[in-house]
Amino acid sequence: MQDLFIVKIGGNVIDNEETLNTFIRDFAEIKGHKILIHGGGKLATELSAALGIETKMIKGRRITDGQTIKVVTMVYAGWVNKLITAKLQANSCAAIGLSGVDGALLPVVKRPVTDIDYGLVGDLLPQDINTTWLQTLLNSGSTVVVAPISCNAQGELLNINADSVASAIAESMSVVFNTSLFYCFEKDGLLQDVNNAASVIRHINTGQIELLKLNGTITAGMLPKIDTAAKAISNGVSKVVIGNAAHIKQLVNEQPGYGTHITQ
Amino acid sequence: MQDLFIVKIGGNVIDNEETLNTFIRDFAEIKGHKILIHGGGKLATELSAALGIETKMIKGRRITDGQTIKVVTMVYAGWVNKLITAKLQANSCAAIGLSGVDGALLPVVKRPVTDIDYGLVGDLLPQDINTTWLQTLLNSGSTVVVAPISCNAQGELLNINADSVASAIAESMSVVFNTSLFYCFEKDGLLQDVNNAASVIRHINTGQIELLKLNGTITAGMLPKIDTAAKAISNGVSKVVIGNAAHIKQLVNEQPGYGTHITQ
Repeated sequence: MQDLFIVKIGGNVIDNEETLNTFIRDFAEIKGHKILIHGGGKLATELSAALGIETKMIKGRRITDGQTIKVVTMVYAGWVNKLITAKLQANSCAAIGLSGVDGALLPVVKRPVTDIDYGLVGDLLPQDINTTWLQTLLNSGSTVVVAPISCNAQGELLNINADSVASAIAESMSVVFNTSLFYCFEKDGLLQDVNNAASVIRHINTGQIELLKLNGTITAGMLPKIDTAAKAISNGVSKVVIGNAAHIKQLVNEQPGYGTHITQ
Repeated sequence: MQDLFIVKIGGNVIDNEETLNTFIRDFAEIKGHKILIHGGGKLATELSAALGIETKMIKGRRITDGQTIKVVTMVYAGWVNKLITAKLQANSCAAIGLSGVDGALLPVVKRPVTDIDYGLVGDLLPQDINTTWLQTLLNSGSTVVVAPISCNAQGELLNINADSVASAIAESMSVVFNTSLFYCFEKDGLLQDVNNAASVIRHINTGQIELLKLNGTITAGMLPKIDTAAKAISNGVSKVVIGNAAHIKQLVNEQPGYGTHITQ
């Protein structure tokens, strides 16, 4: 099997132009097949604020109303997706920016309302991901940049959690590629003590993750990342690492002392 | 040669949800290869206004500064592109939404400053359009939806006139397909008298167009459309028609009495 590197970058990497440029340069240099999944949360929050739209978050996930889906589609699938794709091309990386809508890449259903109404939010149908098309694009030498926006069968645009997109794509592609998944953000990994940047947990298994959730070490914004990371490693993805976007080269090259490695 | 239908829709078609839905339903039913190019001008102007960014137009073309490129990328490549692509899929049309950035579909250079500084505006390099990829997508049964945003070799995002995108794609694809180009907007065609909606000119050649430009019948917003239409018919495109988006079926089916047909 050929290697496939799937990298998800968080909003903090995108917000700082210098950080983003460094990351793009390093990412462009990774040899072989690669897919980049991005969020863009802070930009969406800023645009919402400028337009007088209130941002609501529950357990690290955004509540998406009719105005918010417009904002996130514009920011994620528009500005951030094209900015990153253009920057990659300027770094000699043949990139194609897509949303889940395009070519029915990421079919979703609207999340049913239970105790929380997340609004216009999509839940992925992992078995329906258009892996054939992704494979065609990768095999033609393209790098795919994915924005976490898709639509249901009724053509309704829906917001998807970017961490979930990354793990779902990694899981479905692990059937045909030796797939590694990297969650990159502004910290060096999962921290034992949130106030101590040096307290990186080097290895953690899915059982230990459950304990850290119970004792409150893992909270809020980290929840979707950790939960989907644990799911990915249990579902066929060869390697799952949480680390600093500034260290993407070291993480991909398996240099010791970088990131948190998730094991089963 | 197989037929290829290239349709460009203007901002007024997109702004009205009912008009857009009707158009999408009709467009989805067109048999064979098709490409849809969209603008989205009014939405961009509204978002600019909401954000306190002044909109400047000269001769029907938008002046694009650093804030405006963000707005048009968000509106064109984000909201409008994904909205249309999602609606097409809901109408059983396998659609892929792209900007000129993606897969280096539409390479551009930044327009040099002469008497007017258009700002972050791209001029197409028609010989460099990625026709191979477009062909691959069309032959796999996909309909391609194109937003008029691209980037130069330095990765700088640039705004392109959607009418120019439509004619440039039509010209380059006419080498491999029997290509028809339709400019669709809210009027029935090119009007002899702008105040009389029934005064549609049924046929006009490139020489007559020059006369109508001189006597002022063709002005402002119509200029890019007419100029690029004339260029397309002179450069290998089989058929070029300007007409009402509500009549796309009749225009494609060559029903007499619809639209303005441009001839050499």
